[in-house]
Amino acid sequence: MKTIVILGAGKSSTYLIDYLAGTCGPERQLILADLDLSNAQAKIQNKPFTSAVAIHTSEESQRKALIAQADVVISMLPAFMHPIIAKDCLELEKHFFTASYESEELRKMKPEIERKGLLFLNECGLDPGIDHMSAMKIIDEAKSRGEEILSFKSYCGGLLAPESEDNPWKYKFTWNPRNVVLAGQGTSRYIEKGDYKYVPYHRLFGRNETLSFPGLGNFDGYPNRDSLSYRSIYGLENIPTLLRGTLRREGFCKAWDVFVQLGMTEDSYSMELPKGCTFRQYLNAFLPWHEALTVEEKLADLIPDLDFPTFEKLQWLGLFDDRPLPLAEGSPSKILQAILEKEWALRPEDKDMIVMQHLFEIKTNHGIKKVTSSLVSFGQDANLTAMAKTVGLPLAIAVDLFLKGEISLSGLQIPVISELYEPILSELEKFGIRFEEKTELNTD
Amino acid sequence: MKTIVILGAGKSSTYLIDYLAGTCGPERQLILADLDLSNAQAKIQNKPFTSAVAIHTSEESQRKALIAQADVVISMLPAFMHPIIAKDCLELEKHFFTASYESEELRKMKPEIERKGLLFLNECGLDPGIDHMSAMKIIDEAKSRGEEILSFKSYCGGLLAPESEDNPWKYKFTWNPRNVVLAGQGTSRYIEKGDYKYVPYHRLFGRNETLSFPGLGNFDGYPNRDSLSYRSIYGLENIPTLLRGTLRREGFCKAWDVFVQLGMTEDSYSMELPKGCTFRQYLNAFLPWHEALTVEEKLADLIPDLDFPTFEKLQWLGLFDDRPLPLAEGSPSKILQAILEKEWALRPEDKDMIVMQHLFEIKTNHGIKKVTSSLVSFGQDANLTAMAKTVGLPLAIAVDLFLKGEISLSGLQIPVISELYEPILSELEKFGIRFEEKTELNTD
Repeated sequence: MKTIVILGAGKSSTYLIDYLAGTCGPERQLILADLDLSNAQAKIQNKPFTSAVAIHTSEESQRKALIAQADVVISMLPAFMHPIIAKDCLELEKHFFTASYESEELRKMKPEIERKGLLFLNECGLDPGIDHMSAMKIIDEAKSRGEEILSFKSYCGGLLAPESEDNPWKYKFTWNPRNVVLAGQGTSRYIEKGDYKYVPYHRLFGRNETLSFPGLGNFDGYPNRDSLSYRSIYGLENIPTLLRGTLRREGFCKAWDVFVQLGMTEDSYSMELPKGCTFRQYLNAFLPWHEALTVEEKLADLIPDLDFPTFEKLQWLGLFDDRPLPLAEGSPSKILQAILEKEWALRPEDKDMIVMQHLFEIKTNHGIKKVTSSLVSFGQDANLTAMAKTVGLPLAIAVDLFLKGEISLSGLQIPVISELYEPILSELEKFGIRFEEKTELNTD
Repeated sequence: MKTIVILGAGKSSTYLIDYLAGTCGPERQLILADLDLSNAQAKIQNKPFTSAVAIHTSEESQRKALIAQADVVISMLPAFMHPIIAKDCLELEKHFFTASYESEELRKMKPEIERKGLLFLNECGLDPGIDHMSAMKIIDEAKSRGEEILSFKSYCGGLLAPESEDNPWKYKFTWNPRNVVLAGQGTSRYIEKGDYKYVPYHRLFGRNETLSFPGLGNFDGYPNRDSLSYRSIYGLENIPTLLRGTLRREGFCKAWDVFVQLGMTEDSYSMELPKGCTFRQYLNAFLPWHEALTVEEKLADLIPDLDFPTFEKLQWLGLFDDRPLPLAEGSPSKILQAILEKEWALRPEDKDMIVMQHLFEIKTNHGIKKVTSSLVSFGQDANLTAMAKTVGLPLAIAVDLFLKGEISLSGLQIPVISELYEPILSELEKFGIRFEEKTELNTD
């Protein structure tokens, strides 16, 4: 009897839980642990060979007693908890799986993970996860044919299905709102035609490219954090162009850039605002004082290319209104988040959408080949989201394959090797998670 | 016999040392301590009743043995050392003086300072220091006449005397280059006509006002850090307009803003650059890639209002040159600093200049009175700077007055009370450090 322990029964665990519950039987059981027992019970639905337990993850003895029962532990907890759970797993000699980034703390555990023959697999969700797997499949294939990869740009976005794009931003929160509000802070780095490129945060949303998906139209793609580090991850040390980016609907970036330009996404200080501060006063606090101009006029002066689609997005959020703010203390970004959480909340019937696109330029014996590989995945409703599906299924499949002995790896891993990505991508196709590839050969 | 111990014999201590050495005699001696004994000896010049000693301030026993001999300790060390020295002074029951900001650590010592009847006087240099004193004199006088202060804007800059303004920036380093390069990072906050105003760093150098000084022409003034906190410091809790700012020569801010817009003043990450990286490649790393445009053209595209005076400043620094950088690793700001340290170094004969201006609007029985109070102080050469004079003399005078018993305060203080600012300002006038006041009464 093998035991899987899943820690965290949040929204993003739904598909993971369902997939693995479906694999249970006399030789495999699943224990789902959550702070909220009724939540875990609702997710597990009394399926055979599954059980739900309550857990306070901060209580070490409780946590270890649970982990001691496991063969494989999957952490769906907030990222800061992963190293704590990983340490327990190391001590109790349990395999450990997450959909989150491999952290420095995890890397420090590497020698001990290897010595104990355990598998610690991270970055096995969507992004990171499916991005690695689908990219490495193309990269490895090209390399095996002796081709040279000249350019690799990869974009991903968690957005709305077109039928749910019912606000001017064409955006609602399908994951952690705080991460969305703070997205891109720091300096984004990439390499283009051999030139290193550094984009400071306040320039980021003005530096986007247009990408299109068949049948879906155009998207903004902006460079995301440190693309340079992916050269070694993907074995592309000498590639002239490598860029990873984030996708938003066309026009989103230009409007979001207004918030960045105003300083509304700052999280480093607490604002002092008048009592009963209105949306309009909050906006005005970021505008230069003028004796006669209205808030709208001052904004137009500060943002010279403010166009109607941008203005409409700000107006739709109520930023020019005399109504009181939903939250009038804390950092600018906390206040902005409070506004957006009200206006960008998913309705129960809303469907989300995951879009991912890899753009390769590959030098072949016949000329330069352009490969565009696109993934589109739609959610069913606000609970059964494409986000939960694409994050949870790769992880669930990896755990299942591992327990069936079809993956015999150990050590600290991410899914960039064919032993992992081949069977996972193949199983994902059965769930409609499939890349469409378009190839264009330039024989000039 | 009273003993003054000065810690730190750097450039900014020259006037402080000379003033206090001049007050020594059978009843007062001065010990000057520096890491570099020969430096301390050169500063002290064998004057009677003075001595120079070597000290490693990180060695507690050495430090305490020195402080134990003192009645008054003056710290001219880097700011992070002040709380360490202050703690020693508290333990050994010595009075403590600095020209630096009163820190949170110092505030925690307040009850013990008071219990032991010691005087810990901070912010008694130029800015902070002379700014407090000269402002409070005007504020207290207005209040004593029952007048209401409607607006107070205060600007200060450490610049060059016009005769040494021999580069297009009209700027050279007269104090810590790193602080100049990172100046303004974070969000600047002030209040204008009752409206709170928040200016993010990337907007700061585009949000300046023009100020003029008689005979000196125009200057850019930009809002500096947290002006809101000065309301309580100056007893102006309900003032509708309060802004503190930094002065640069006209046109400086527009050119410096190019660095900010490009991300060249970022200090949060280490750049990866090609071997033998040139000035031009460094600049190009912050520009979007383009297949045909030159670096100059890409820059002009990114900075639409790039005018000739701005371009000339960048060109003068060599930023378009194919020469290798003086430093090609570290953060963007470290590299920028290395470039500037070469180009903005003071020559021995260069004269610096301190400019400070307070602009008040005061409601009187006769109408609104506008008071402009300006200080201009010129250095003699690269060693005897106006910076060292205006930082060192107020501190020296305060220590002298205290030892003569003319200041009988104790506790944790800054010079915002008349017992301090009256005699200090009056003594400073003897050294030509004097504000020129212009008053204009609007009787509409």
